[in-house]
Amino acid sequence: MTTSATVPAGPAHTMRPELAGTAARTLVRCRDLVRPSLSAALERLHAWPGEMAAYSLGWCEVGGTPTEGAVEGKGVRQALAVLSAEAVGASGESALAGAVAVELVHTFSLLHDDIMDGDGMRRQRETVWKAYGTGPAVLAGDALLALAVQVLAETPGPHAAAAVGRLSGTLTGLVRGQAEDLLFASRPWTGPDAVRPGEYRAMAELKTGTLLGCAAALGGLLGGAPPRTVAALDRAGRHLGVAFQAVDDLLGIWGDPAVTGKPVHSDLRQRKKTCPVLAALAGGGRHARELAALLDAPLPLDDAGAVRATALVEACGGRTATLEEARRHLDAAHGCLRGVPLAPRAAYEIEGLLEFLLHREV
Amino acid sequence: MTTSATVPAGPAHTMRPELAGTAARTLVRCRDLVRPSLSAALERLHAWPGEMAAYSLGWCEVGGTPTEGAVEGKGVRQALAVLSAEAVGASGESALAGAVAVELVHTFSLLHDDIMDGDGMRRQRETVWKAYGTGPAVLAGDALLALAVQVLAETPGPHAAAAVGRLSGTLTGLVRGQAEDLLFASRPWTGPDAVRPGEYRAMAELKTGTLLGCAAALGGLLGGAPPRTVAALDRAGRHLGVAFQAVDDLLGIWGDPAVTGKPVHSDLRQRKKTCPVLAALAGGGRHARELAALLDAPLPLDDAGAVRATALVEACGGRTATLEEARRHLDAAHGCLRGVPLAPRAAYEIEGLLEFLLHREV
Repeated sequence: MTTSATVPAGPAHTMRPELAGTAARTLVRCRDLVRPSLSAALERLHAWPGEMAAYSLGWCEVGGTPTEGAVEGKGVRQALAVLSAEAVGASGESALAGAVAVELVHTFSLLHDDIMDGDGMRRQRETVWKAYGTGPAVLAGDALLALAVQVLAETPGPHAAAAVGRLSGTLTGLVRGQAEDLLFASRPWTGPDAVRPGEYRAMAELKTGTLLGCAAALGGLLGGAPPRTVAALDRAGRHLGVAFQAVDDLLGIWGDPAVTGKPVHSDLRQRKKTCPVLAALAGGGRHARELAALLDAPLPLDDAGAVRATALVEACGGRTATLEEARRHLDAAHGCLRGVPLAPRAAYEIEGLLEFLLHREV
Repeated sequence: MTTSATVPAGPAHTMRPELAGTAARTLVRCRDLVRPSLSAALERLHAWPGEMAAYSLGWCEVGGTPTEGAVEGKGVRQALAVLSAEAVGASGESALAGAVAVELVHTFSLLHDDIMDGDGMRRQRETVWKAYGTGPAVLAGDALLALAVQVLAETPGPHAAAAVGRLSGTLTGLVRGQAEDLLFASRPWTGPDAVRPGEYRAMAELKTGTLLGCAAALGGLLGGAPPRTVAALDRAGRHLGVAFQAVDDLLGIWGDPAVTGKPVHSDLRQRKKTCPVLAALAGGGRHARELAALLDAPLPLDDAGAVRATALVEACGGRTATLEEARRHLDAAHGCLRGVPLAPRAAYEIEGLLEFLLHREV
């Protein structure tokens, strides 16, 4: 992918084709490196939650048959852990326990969040609770979470305690972010109790940024980096998380249904409180009032309503503000990385990954 | 409580009244010691999962109003952690992080297990998923689990890594036990796929013993005990867990509804696969076949059916076998404790606690 339908490249961030090609290769390389350890970790699970975990990772169908065709996630978190270890001068292998742990935690959070959000589809397949039942899906998520902590606690070498400490802080942050996100749904679109864009950003940092920051920090930590470098990697990952969520929000409204697998204007139809809408409403004015009225209407948005709401979000500057938010946080991530000494080759690959994620279509 | 309706004291294990009195005082003392730390830990949670956690612990009603009257659990796990630290010559305070962590994990597991089992009532109140909804209950459980790991990872001193390693192994064991327990429900009462008593015992050790063993071991570990003592405490806790589960199973059939809060013969009406029933069926014979036919019948057991099934379990020796199982594992627990040097006062309190748990009515 060398161009993007959703995030036009500006002068400050022209997407360089060679970086995008690097990113795709990087993701594959890191996935191949981590896969045996991740697979070995899953085999430690009881067969039943183990199958649900493998299904959730896109490795098998219900019943355990290996999948045909690619339904796996991108593996951004494991890649960040591996690249961060390499960036601090260690081998990618030294970050394996961290890479496995963050992928397990990511899978846990998708699995439980889908229950809480009532989402029945993910990556064009039924979600685990839909395919296996709610109780079993709760169990599988618990199994993944426990396994993540165990894998990291068993890391040989002197860094296990610090690594687990970092992961546990990440877990409490993730849960806090999910709690906020769930509560946003019942808050009004306007008035003093409306969700402010700053609250949304704080939620996105907890829900998405904490784990990306943890991935990068664990790579640095297990690679033996000094605390200042680990902290910079953590901050870079957190900024990346906010940018990532902003791009997700853009795709949720303006993404190509053929690529995202969701209906056009999906997030508006579902009246999700996302960055573009909250930014649009926060500006006030006639269009914002019309948008709020549409979102407040008791009936679901029909096609015409969704098109109109999308136009209003754009007219109120919600799309531009979200693009700027993504760019700003991506710039900040780059800044964090440039402030510490990193191995050039791995740093280049991380930068490529950041750009790839900003310009991704899904 | 000086006598027991369910587990008559035999010559080898006459319940000594002074031990029972000691146990009640011990539980209160340990609860009072741990309460400020447990309460401080809960305050670190987001307010919403925090309220659900406090509700689950029996500290508040839905909405957050403090509860009137005692609906708290016995606090066996926190007591075991505190007493084990004292038994290895350390202060109870040195085990606080461990005591808090095991209570948090216990609360997490009740919360998620109630979702998986579809149980709507616990300790005479609605379960969290019933009172707050399934999604929020999943979230609250996740929050408790994450907090448990965090509290332990932050333990000052040299034992944090070993403590978290032990807790993470416990968590994977708990999940494995719960997976087995859920799968037992769909297995037949008779034939080659029937649940064997040994499988049931293995499940009980994972689901109940692992966390009790962890509580005792963490107390020893944080109290600075040598590995041999920590291992003995762990083994004692595991045996206690199997005994505890056996007593639970006896109470589930023969317990006094006024005390247990459940209908008479509750577990048989729900056709739960428990130790007395599995032991009864495993013996074979005419009564076992009649029992299997009753349990296999398509309609729910009526009062007469439940009374008859109870009589058949007893006639097949299921009650006696379960009593013996409880005694045997309690003896083994005592044996583990006597095999290592422990401070007499704390060891006496632990022994009192074990007897109390064997003879409890609820």
